[in-house]
Amino acid sequence: MPEGPSLAELGEEGLLKRLAVHAPPDQWSDDAALLPELQGQRWVISSDALVQGVHFSEATTPAWSTGWRAAAANLSDLAAMGCRSCAGITVALAAPGRTSALWLEQVYSGMNQLLQDHGGTLLGGDCSRADQVMLAITAIGPVDPARQVRRGDGRPGDALVVTGTHGLSGLGLQWLLGNALSTSELSEATIQQAIRAHQRPQPRFDAIEALHASQPPRMPWRVGGTDSSDGLRRSLELISQASGCRAELDPAALPQPISRGDDAVMKALCLDGGEDFELVLALDQTWADALVQALPSATIIGQLVDHRGPPCWSDTKKPLPDGRGFEHFNQRSD
Amino acid sequence: MPEGPSLAELGEEGLLKRLAVHAPPDQWSDDAALLPELQGQRWVISSDALVQGVHFSEATTPAWSTGWRAAAANLSDLAAMGCRSCAGITVALAAPGRTSALWLEQVYSGMNQLLQDHGGTLLGGDCSRADQVMLAITAIGPVDPARQVRRGDGRPGDALVVTGTHGLSGLGLQWLLGNALSTSELSEATIQQAIRAHQRPQPRFDAIEALHASQPPRMPWRVGGTDSSDGLRRSLELISQASGCRAELDPAALPQPISRGDDAVMKALCLDGGEDFELVLALDQTWADALVQALPSATIIGQLVDHRGPPCWSDTKKPLPDGRGFEHFNQRSD
Repeated sequence: MPEGPSLAELGEEGLLKRLAVHAPPDQWSDDAALLPELQGQRWVISSDALVQGVHFSEATTPAWSTGWRAAAANLSDLAAMGCRSCAGITVALAAPGRTSALWLEQVYSGMNQLLQDHGGTLLGGDCSRADQVMLAITAIGPVDPARQVRRGDGRPGDALVVTGTHGLSGLGLQWLLGNALSTSELSEATIQQAIRAHQRPQPRFDAIEALHASQPPRMPWRVGGTDSSDGLRRSLELISQASGCRAELDPAALPQPISRGDDAVMKALCLDGGEDFELVLALDQTWADALVQALPSATIIGQLVDHRGPPCWSDTKKPLPDGRGFEHFNQRSD
Repeated sequence: MPEGPSLAELGEEGLLKRLAVHAPPDQWSDDAALLPELQGQRWVISSDALVQGVHFSEATTPAWSTGWRAAAANLSDLAAMGCRSCAGITVALAAPGRTSALWLEQVYSGMNQLLQDHGGTLLGGDCSRADQVMLAITAIGPVDPARQVRRGDGRPGDALVVTGTHGLSGLGLQWLLGNALSTSELSEATIQQAIRAHQRPQPRFDAIEALHASQPPRMPWRVGGTDSSDGLRRSLELISQASGCRAELDPAALPQPISRGDDAVMKALCLDGGEDFELVLALDQTWADALVQALPSATIIGQLVDHRGPPCWSDTKKPLPDGRGFEHFNQRSD
């Protein structure tokens, strides 16, 4: 191999910056890619790789859940672009020859169950040998070109809306890993809910439906947004950077799954736990009010303001507390 | 992992049969998947995984060629469905942190060069850590719904047409691996041509254009076909099985890159070398004659006949000589 920095030295962001020279400008700036419009119709396409030992392990994820989560992550990217449905997925599988066929059938059964619940079919794919199991999934879905959701479409004054709580999936993962989290205070119901959030996340096409239904009359379509696969903080960073704004978060409105006073662990899981696959949206205050009426799981958590900077608290204007980053090439993510 | 057979025990075909229960019937029976028709327009989508040490190695494939070949294989699948162009590709990359960023940039540069030559953009993708470099590429392109090419659309009496010679890529690979092939008889020009065929294969969108241009007036569109990624023999098997016919091959018309009398090695490379990424088509004799006129690289190599069975010679009706299979989970393919 040639000399120069390694991927670990560059980090994911540095790598993407270097690779983006091979794509049209801004092509890679959203959750998924928009295909060229063809006769007034547009498709959205999204690809993700899941690697055994990195994104899933037998300790925390049964086979069906591995399949379910892999498909859910991709469908969530479609929802984050404004798609209301998915046409289907392709699956490029690489696995060692010793892999159990039954295990793999359960993975595909999980993907198929997710598709049956949320729409779409297993369109096709490819099988290959490798030393490690990898599932690369590509999802494709139609979007109304006049009703897209883009990260950069937030504006100063917009309300920030989340479609559900954040931190449950991370809590479930920590529990499954056996990590101590003062769990004596957690009820059995919360633990079950957290495990379910981790093993069976739901792509929020229903939130896009609610967004359509709640659009105030005569208000033009303009919605900034992304999904919270890499955590709430990261979603806020992505929207505010792309929109040239700053996200101010109301500390009283932090969408924690359970509130335990000033609990630093729960706050960290809420901001940085990741993999909740909710939508984080920036839109007009009137529309936001209508949306949270139409979608009971949604809440307004803050607003976009007219200067740049990292997400901060709305009262003190201090940046959110430091959390763990999500850096693919340097550390294990689970 | 649960009990039961391993992937190696099942083999690729056995595995696909088990997994196909999760897809609609016949969904997986072509080179790529057709998306649902949307307002008279249709997209074709194809995914492939390439794994270091299985599909490419530094010994035989420089970085730019790894990228070029990965993208070319997917665009070839689009051409095999009748697409005349590609909108773009997504790339899901998994790689160890120690991977050279420069190497990876060269891979993307190769993909980009292929796209610049043949159309399409790097739509997006994903990066992740893994123990081994894996590239999962998904290509998408539009197809005229009235002018698709399907494996099962061959009919008895059809001429079999190949868009170019077969065996050059395999010859190039064997040369690069340093394997003895009585190469004293090969000219330097042939060797260079073979290396180029292996490192820089061309998706045959031009052949689909020629197919359109050569369609005889008043003859309805019906073209069976596939690409020859897994070898000429495999292409003939796929078309004849899906079309319920048998492929008869004219021994004098075997599309070898160089003819050296009754050379068993060259014949084996031609039938089973693989990765030539030509198209193998089954169509009306009149149309086939017009096509080989319009496309000088194309030749008629035989015909489909009205009973089932493995591909055979047209004179003796004996099956083609045994060749090596291409079995992803059992053996190394290069």
